Amino acid sequence: MDSFEKQARELVSKMTLAERCSQLLHNAPAIERLGVPAYNWWNEALHGVARSGVATVFPQSIAMAASFDDALLYRVAQAISDEARAKYNEYKRFGSTQIYQGLTFWSPNINIFRDPRWGRGHETYGEDPYLTGRMGAAFVRGLQGDPKAKYKKLDATLKHYAVHSGPESQRHSFDAVVSKQDLYETYLPAFKYCIEKASPSAVMGAYNRTNGEPCCASPTLIGEILYKQFKFKGYFLSDCGAINDIHENHHVTNTQAESAALAINNGCVLNCGSAYGALMAAYEAGLVSEETITEAAVKLFTARFRLGMFAPEGDCEYDKIPYDVVDCKKHRKLNAKMARESIVLLKNNGILPLENKKDLKIAVIGPNAKEVSVLLGNYNGTPYEFTTIFEGIKNQAKGKVYYAAGSRHMRGDMGDWEEHLLRDALLAADRSDVVIMCMGLTPNYEGEEGSFGNGGDKRDIELPAAQQNLFREVLARGKPIIFVNVSGSAMNLTEQDEKCDAVIQLFYCGSDGGNALADVIFGRVNPSGRLPVTFYRSTEDLPPFEDYSMDNRTYKFFRGKPLYPFGYGLSYTTFKYSNLTVKPKKHGADFTIDVTNTGSRVGDEVVLLYNHKRNADVRVPIKKLIAFKRVSLKPGETKTVHLKTEKDAFYHVNEDGKWIFTEGEFDVMCGDIAEVIYVK
Amino acid sequence: MDSFEKQARELVSKMTLAERCSQLLHNAPAIERLGVPAYNWWNEALHGVARSGVATVFPQSIAMAASFDDALLYRVAQAISDEARAKYNEYKRFGSTQIYQGLTFWSPNINIFRDPRWGRGHETYGEDPYLTGRMGAAFVRGLQGDPKAKYKKLDATLKHYAVHSGPESQRHSFDAVVSKQDLYETYLPAFKYCIEKASPSAVMGAYNRTNGEPCCASPTLIGEILYKQFKFKGYFLSDCGAINDIHENHHVTNTQAESAALAINNGCVLNCGSAYGALMAAYEAGLVSEETITEAAVKLFTARFRLGMFAPEGDCEYDKIPYDVVDCKKHRKLNAKMARESIVLLKNNGILPLENKKDLKIAVIGPNAKEVSVLLGNYNGTPYEFTTIFEGIKNQAKGKVYYAAGSRHMRGDMGDWEEHLLRDALLAADRSDVVIMCMGLTPNYEGEEGSFGNGGDKRDIELPAAQQNLFREVLARGKPIIFVNVSGSAMNLTEQDEKCDAVIQLFYCGSDGGNALADVIFGRVNPSGRLPVTFYRSTEDLPPFEDYSMDNRTYKFFRGKPLYPFGYGLSYTTFKYSNLTVKPKKHGADFTIDVTNTGSRVGDEVVLLYNHKRNADVRVPIKKLIAFKRVSLKPGETKTVHLKTEKDAFYHVNEDGKWIFTEGEFDVMCGDIAEVIYVK
Repeated sequence: MDSFEKQARELVSKMTLAERCSQLLHNAPAIERLGVPAYNWWNEALHGVARSGVATVFPQSIAMAASFDDALLYRVAQAISDEARAKYNEYKRFGSTQIYQGLTFWSPNINIFRDPRWGRGHETYGEDPYLTGRMGAAFVRGLQGDPKAKYKKLDATLKHYAVHSGPESQRHSFDAVVSKQDLYETYLPAFKYCIEKASPSAVMGAYNRTNGEPCCASPTLIGEILYKQFKFKGYFLSDCGAINDIHENHHVTNTQAESAALAINNGCVLNCGSAYGALMAAYEAGLVSEETITEAAVKLFTARFRLGMFAPEGDCEYDKIPYDVVDCKKHRKLNAKMARESIVLLKNNGILPLENKKDLKIAVIGPNAKEVSVLLGNYNGTPYEFTTIFEGIKNQAKGKVYYAAGSRHMRGDMGDWEEHLLRDALLAADRSDVVIMCMGLTPNYEGEEGSFGNGGDKRDIELPAAQQNLFREVLARGKPIIFVNVSGSAMNLTEQDEKCDAVIQLFYCGSDGGNALADVIFGRVNPSGRLPVTFYRSTEDLPPFEDYSMDNRTYKFFRGKPLYPFGYGLSYTTFKYSNLTVKPKKHGADFTIDVTNTGSRVGDEVVLLYNHKRNADVRVPIKKLIAFKRVSLKPGETKTVHLKTEKDAFYHVNEDGKWIFTEGEFDVMCGDIAEVIYVK
Repeated sequence: MDSFEKQARELVSKMTLAERCSQLLHNAPAIERLGVPAYNWWNEALHGVARSGVATVFPQSIAMAASFDDALLYRVAQAISDEARAKYNEYKRFGSTQIYQGLTFWSPNINIFRDPRWGRGHETYGEDPYLTGRMGAAFVRGLQGDPKAKYKKLDATLKHYAVHSGPESQRHSFDAVVSKQDLYETYLPAFKYCIEKASPSAVMGAYNRTNGEPCCASPTLIGEILYKQFKFKGYFLSDCGAINDIHENHHVTNTQAESAALAINNGCVLNCGSAYGALMAAYEAGLVSEETITEAAVKLFTARFRLGMFAPEGDCEYDKIPYDVVDCKKHRKLNAKMARESIVLLKNNGILPLENKKDLKIAVIGPNAKEVSVLLGNYNGTPYEFTTIFEGIKNQAKGKVYYAAGSRHMRGDMGDWEEHLLRDALLAADRSDVVIMCMGLTPNYEGEEGSFGNGGDKRDIELPAAQQNLFREVLARGKPIIFVNVSGSAMNLTEQDEKCDAVIQLFYCGSDGGNALADVIFGRVNPSGRLPVTFYRSTEDLPPFEDYSMDNRTYKFFRGKPLYPFGYGLSYTTFKYSNLTVKPKKHGADFTIDVTNTGSRVGDEVVLLYNHKRNADVRVPIKKLIAFKRVSLKPGETKTVHLKTEKDAFYHVNEDGKWIFTEGEFDVMCGDIAEVIYVK
């Protein structure tokens, strides 16, 4: 028992049982006689401190995943935790903290972006468990501070545990049915990885059931897997309102008291929502023991002590972080760097980088050109200032820049009394030498339950009809087109790939996104982002959305030909791979490879190492990412890149969900190099 | 018969009766065999070309009225008409014009801003008929181009004729009951003035009834007053859908055909809406004659010929206006000037202008600090770029600027799962030397039928409770406060006047509004706007909203003490008035007065001349604006200002609605000078 737990036990021992119960709700009331201030556990920091006034707004998670730069993400998370602590230090002066003012953050979202239609997919690090694990772990470590320090800087929370990726409209009643193989191979590894590598303080249960058990009260997921198999040491909490779902929507129990008892008895110690208001009733009905309630309270107070909430004046170093770190220059610089690394160049016939000539006339067209929400994503803070795509281009262009929205995001030019947007765009195109189309979605059209349209999810991956019409009309004017797709998810860009001179994927890009894109377009920055999700050719390529089988999904199992594969992304320079060297180790191997910048521009290359088990007697991935590393190379420069793999990189999952190793031949692929090696 | 009418008659004579009917709808179809393209009559340019892509977005009408600078408004309208023609020249290349692409503009709105609760009040030039007439006439002249030119540049349309100022929620069925005295003294003079001084091409009827007659089919308003008394020469059109209101909501007729017949027989030749689709049926039922239909079509085609829509190539000079006038530098400069002249300084204890020191820390707080809609007003175009209030201040301030929204516009910090905005604002205030609060409304909270809340209208003139709370909380931090009220109407600023160091009224201010406000705050610009409406002390001061009697309304008849009177506005310099000289003329007088800048800064003074008839035997205004002039004065400079009055300036309206003159004593007031003169 460490000193924090000891203090927690002592404090909790002085509480009545009703008081202990009250402390298990996210909005825990004050207990004045014990000097315990009110504390609201709910805070968010998906890509910057969220919903708490001005903060540095970094690119959305999916964009940061596209950087494949977990070292940078770690620094981003450090910056976020500095801002979070600085805010807390000020807020606590008010005597209590309100929602979004505390130290316990319900980030990151490490669910697997299983299907591009999931509205919340952009909150994640994409479709690959290994990438998700690497990014998630870096984020958690950055948030939580030095693990050797006496106090914890913040609590990070992995969510949503587990097997959670839509449909949003059904999330309160849905049963995600999943095979053991998919569960252990796809849905759980990122949780396991983050727990092993980064010791997150908390895990949040999902709304849905998984294989029949409500995730926030699942003996299998929580007791068996999370605590026993993964050796999780932190506390488990419910998603908001999820415990009421157990009787109201899942119909697994009949009453709130039963739901509360089921959840706490299965290890859920903190309830976001109101269900634990029924804990005393559950206790009185004999559904839950005093000990269970007490141990839950001890767990939560241990966490609060560990965060330094009751630390003696001057004892917690984080109390000294000053408010002026919020949106400071250093964080802006980090934000700028991350935004630039997150942009993915998908096609370029040589038009890019655009020569920034004084007599070059540019038309910036599309509903996302001036859209602010695409900078912010969701679960976002308020940027002190921001630059839209249009502003970014306009500020850098030396020649005339025309602007026209051209269409709305979703609706066509149909309203009888509404502005007709199309012609203005055609006029702009006609007057210009090149057109930059800024199209796609916004977080209003792909988001959480309750967002626009299909309950938050996308109905398909097609560009909305209104924008398709605009695209074709502009195309018909015959000007070169740089097509910028702004979205948090894969879209069908097949026609754009065929017909445009360049195609750029801009994931929701943070407050500096407009400048970052302009830097790429005009060549100040050499694009280096890589797709963290597969870009399919059309909605027809997708299995039914409700189907949680991984069959024919993601780069690992998709049998068709994607438009742009996972990991894809172009550069303004060229890279050559050579000398793949294998360093065998038990049940695996590490590697080195030489990468040379053979072009004329400085550039970053994301080196991706995949393997594939030959002759397996169960389903194994077509290929599987086992290592990646971002390197920066000057023209002509060669670097030897060390690619260390995890100890289970050459393992696979059998139909019982067991990770097993069987010796034999493996394909190993890196860049354009593919070799077969024997691993034993 | 002029040549345009002759051409129109010839063209119309070739149409079938059904074709003639079809041309009386706002969305007139093509008649290909006659070479008549489709034409949509509906266009808007309230303060810039609206709803037609990028255009210079000038301050909203109420703001431009606050400039009291009709000479500048004339130039603004010229700029607007250049942009409108340039757009038309491009749009017509598509073979037809869609809505918001033609040459017939349904602006200005010269209704009297009778009650501050009317949502659309900010579309008007305020509460005074003379100011409204002066501004409206300048605007019409600027839109329509040189009256001596062969072609008309654009058609301007006075609206909404007549006696129209809410409630928005009842506009389709409301009967505005008004005395003859109020009708002629308050509601009609601006229409008469504009018709006499500026010959507008068109007048649009209001939705409501006035004294029982639907305005779009009123024999009294249209036949008797507009055409006979005011000698209007243009065409009359309906508001959109208003003719259907006659049977559907006013229940004056029973069928669409009857409504159409009633409207056209009373002089309404153009129908915005669909009711004139029933004209053929009305004809067949004997409700309307062929001649009436034919003459209506002739009137409209005469207008189209006069606009040069069928002009031989090269004959209409306006066809040469190039697209690049849209948002050109010259127009931006005009916009900047108008925005600066429209800002009204209401209180200043000396804190303004703010000394722009490097170590001065400023907190910019409030829901309007970053709000874009307050720049745009309604019936607006899309600015190429814009500067919010926050950006304007931030860009100019030499020291640190903090930002916090602090509250939403209307709702308090009540949502359980929502961001709590207040504390962030208090933190910003605490860190600053001075607080600039950017509060008030947006065009979403005061607007046309269908806008937020009370059907478009304001329920009261109070600052919303959420903002009052924010104000008091910030006030309690003890920092100096510069309170910027952003709205399109009078608000209760009594508490702010008492407790703040400075109060500024920023009417919806156009795309450059943020820079303009910063110029005023930091003293680059000396404020010179004057209130075009009375600022009452509270909602209690107002008569019932539905009551159209002018009794106890506006500066002319309000018996209470306003917080800030009509015409009020402070400067950073001081002005002295002297030598009021009377130049008698028949039934009136002209005047000169000397105005001296007795302070140390260059400044504009708006010289306002009022009179009041003594010993009248009917109700006459407490005072009445009869002349105004804006003059610019260097420190120490004196100018003699000539104040020419209209020929009826010393007339008054009796209870029969007649403008009459009776000789006798008049008070004459200008600045701090008041004299009694005898006029005969």
